[in-house]
Amino acid sequence: MPKIQTPLILVNFKTYLEGTGKKALELAKKAEKVHLETHVSFGLAPQYSDIPTLAKAVSIPIFAQHVDFEKPGSFTGFVLPEAVKEAGAVGTLINHSEHRLKLADIDAAITRARETGLISCVCSNNAKVSAAVAALQPDIIAIEPPELIGTGIPVSKAKPEVVSGTVELVRRINREVIILCGAGITKGEDVAAALRLGTVGVLVASGVVKAKDPYMVMREFADSVRK
Amino acid sequence: MPKIQTPLILVNFKTYLEGTGKKALELAKKAEKVHLETHVSFGLAPQYSDIPTLAKAVSIPIFAQHVDFEKPGSFTGFVLPEAVKEAGAVGTLINHSEHRLKLADIDAAITRARETGLISCVCSNNAKVSAAVAALQPDIIAIEPPELIGTGIPVSKAKPEVVSGTVELVRRINREVIILCGAGITKGEDVAAALRLGTVGVLVASGVVKAKDPYMVMREFADSVRK
Amino acid sequence: MPKIQTPLILVNFKTYLEGTGKKALELAKKAEKVHLETHVSFGLAPQYSDIPTLAKAVSIPIFAQHVDFEKPGSFTGFVLPEAVKEAGAVGTLINHSEHRLKLADIDAAITRARETGLISCVCSNNAKVSAAVAALQPDIIAIEPPELIGTGIPVSKAKPEVVSGTVELVRRINREVIILCGAGITKGEDVAAALRLGTVGVLVASGVVKAKDPYMVMREFADSVRK
Amino acid sequence: MPKIQTPLILVNFKTYLEGTGKKALELAKKAEKVHLETHVSFGLAPQYSDIPTLAKAVSIPIFAQHVDFEKPGSFTGFVLPEAVKEAGAVGTLINHSEHRLKLADIDAAITRARETGLISCVCSNNAKVSAAVAALQPDIIAIEPPELIGTGIPVSKAKPEVVSGTVELVRRINREVIILCGAGITKGEDVAAALRLGTVGVLVASGVVKAKDPYMVMREFADSVRK
Repeated sequence: MPKIQTPLILVNFKTYLEGTGKKALELAKKAEKVHLETHVSFGLAPQYSDIPTLAKAVSIPIFAQHVDFEKPGSFTGFVLPEAVKEAGAVGTLINHSEHRLKLADIDAAITRARETGLISCVCSNNAKVSAAVAALQPDIIAIEPPELIGTGIPVSKAKPEVVSGTVELVRRINREVIILCGAGITKGEDVAAALRLGTVGVLVASGVVKAKDPYMVMREFADSVRK
Repeated sequence: MPKIQTPLILVNFKTYLEGTGKKALELAKKAEKVHLETHVSFGLAPQYSDIPTLAKAVSIPIFAQHVDFEKPGSFTGFVLPEAVKEAGAVGTLINHSEHRLKLADIDAAITRARETGLISCVCSNNAKVSAAVAALQPDIIAIEPPELIGTGIPVSKAKPEVVSGTVELVRRINREVIILCGAGITKGEDVAAALRLGTVGVLVASGVVKAKDPYMVMREFADSVRK
Repeated sequence: MPKIQTPLILVNFKTYLEGTGKKALELAKKAEKVHLETHVSFGLAPQYSDIPTLAKAVSIPIFAQHVDFEKPGSFTGFVLPEAVKEAGAVGTLINHSEHRLKLADIDAAITRARETGLISCVCSNNAKVSAAVAALQPDIIAIEPPELIGTGIPVSKAKPEVVSGTVELVRRINREVIILCGAGITKGEDVAAALRLGTVGVLVASGVVKAKDPYMVMREFADSVRK
Repeated sequence: MPKIQTPLILVNFKTYLEGTGKKALELAKKAEKVHLETHVSFGLAPQYSDIPTLAKAVSIPIFAQHVDFEKPGSFTGFVLPEAVKEAGAVGTLINHSEHRLKLADIDAAITRARETGLISCVCSNNAKVSAAVAALQPDIIAIEPPELIGTGIPVSKAKPEVVSGTVELVRRINREVIILCGAGITKGEDVAAALRLGTVGVLVASGVVKAKDPYMVMREFADSVRK
């Protein structure tokens, strides 16, 4: 199983054009630059068809945005864990707010990720659901209140009780799992606030990918983590 | 819009391990070999994360196995037509039997494929549904009775009336669309039978991908097309 | 197969509290009153659990809001055509904008409705999709542009070309099917406009169910139909 | 909130014809007879459109087979908790193996059930998923390994470790929740075994509904509970 270093800044490229194809590659190189300058740990979640290019081009861990739980077989259009792994991914998001899964399928996807050697990062929408996810024993939980995603209103400042409540409920059930938070994170101080609340990093998307200067934003994030 | 040459042999790699990663590349090279030897038109539909590698490596048109209709944006884990296009695909399957879509979403996905410059190949399960698809004006329709998929019982011989009935109903509504058939195709004579029934090619998967000698099967298919 | 009389005013109760339980029954009685006064044909689509009560209480045809295509069996939580039929429904909506189905499942649901003796009313979102639905040979098509649903902006006045375009495309494929339109219908003149565009009735919801005086609105609709 | 008495025998009518309409009513009366004779607590989960009839006819608690989490509004074809409540249900199944829900939607459906005054019975497929469900604090958890459903191979005898493992994991997280088990239960001794493993009842379906003599089976279940 690949090891993930924390604190961690995990950047979800979604299906933004600013994070697709050549632009995905440019973005990945900027993340790598910040990582090399600051030694802060980054992860990147590009679209499936950009995984092989990015995995070859940069030394930063690549995550899929989703994997299906089905075994190899007759599943046209599905995302096979083995395929993204061979393409160079070391992990995968599961159950992102924009790609919610059935409960039994989250369990199955975590199991499939583990047996394929992929780090599983399961997203959740509130403290209670985070506790449920914790019982499924993924490697990472990322709590993201959906109402704040893409708003620029940082969860770590606007809803600190959701983050700290998540940490508390999750820790009663699971002492090992890495806890991230996300939604509305655009500044270094949002990241710093997330760490103070007991998480070890952030899951970010538009705050980086759609920024005028993604390098500067990622650098600010990394600097706030090192303080 | 890219042009597709007919007769066409379209090979769906599904999520078979025999069609994933390095093995997808080997398979693509075998298809290219047959194409170069016979000048018969092939298309290949590998998994998303194998598209860029195959598109660079071979001169055969690459199809995605599915695209989502959503515009670029906040759609984590979705398959953006622009992304698979930039990765090198020239077309996409839509509504495969193993990845059925809502009716309105098939319409939207065809529109998105067209505006992105991707050839749309919409799968259908019977003659009536094929007629419905024809009204949506995709580039290609592939009729595949789901009960025969993966069986080795060829639609073109076991259910010729489904294929000819599809051709008849579709042509009442749409004179342009390219018609393929699939399910259970494993031999050259199955392909020849498909052409005699009024289609201009086949959609195949396990018959090639899981064959002991995929080169030989594809060569047999191509030879039967040239007769 | 039950016969449906046209022109038809089909009222969808959705999951509005104003159309649930006792209030569903009151609403149904108002519809019946208008029907008895004007002899205009009405249909009512309440929630599943209100079907038996309404079917017993009023002489107006009752529709389910949806049925599943599965045969009787192990399908917990599904809506069996046989069950809504026995509860007193004579027809069913299929593929409403808020309950979109996969293409193959629409085909299967129409078939199941027919074999159970239920009138099928399939909703569509634009002219091209309506043509696709027409190929599946339901009893009724209801074209409803989703962007106008619940707005009070009547499709028959704001987008007459969608309605007339639907009628034109559908008639090329299917001469028999009854065509309704819906979305934003709140006044008698909206209904009259719908009839002038070539439909034989309307599918309405909030315009009636959430009206201050549903009786008056239904009466106005009925009067506009009789002119 | 209605109180549920344990031990509990909860009978899911699914979409079996033997449990639809008039036959649902007959079955309910047999269950009531057994209840009156033995004082053992029963619950019945008929199809939505049979809820009002059964709720009026018998003194046994009626459950919906599923509810949606959406609030009253524009949700055609959805199952509104308020509607099944007003129709006479006192509770609802959620996330049955044949009707799996997204994790966040299970959480939302439990919340909606609670605010509507419906008892929530959430189904799960293994011990780990049961623990996840426990974190969501429903009123009842029913563990049912899907591979045994409908087989006649009783979970309580064929996979006792799944049942006892569920009880153990769930109790670490939630001391209050009522735990049932199901799948393959056809005999009194299967029910007795379920109770010995730490559950307080069973969720059954075909074992009763498709039995030659449902009264006798239910009576045998009830007798085994009383011992």
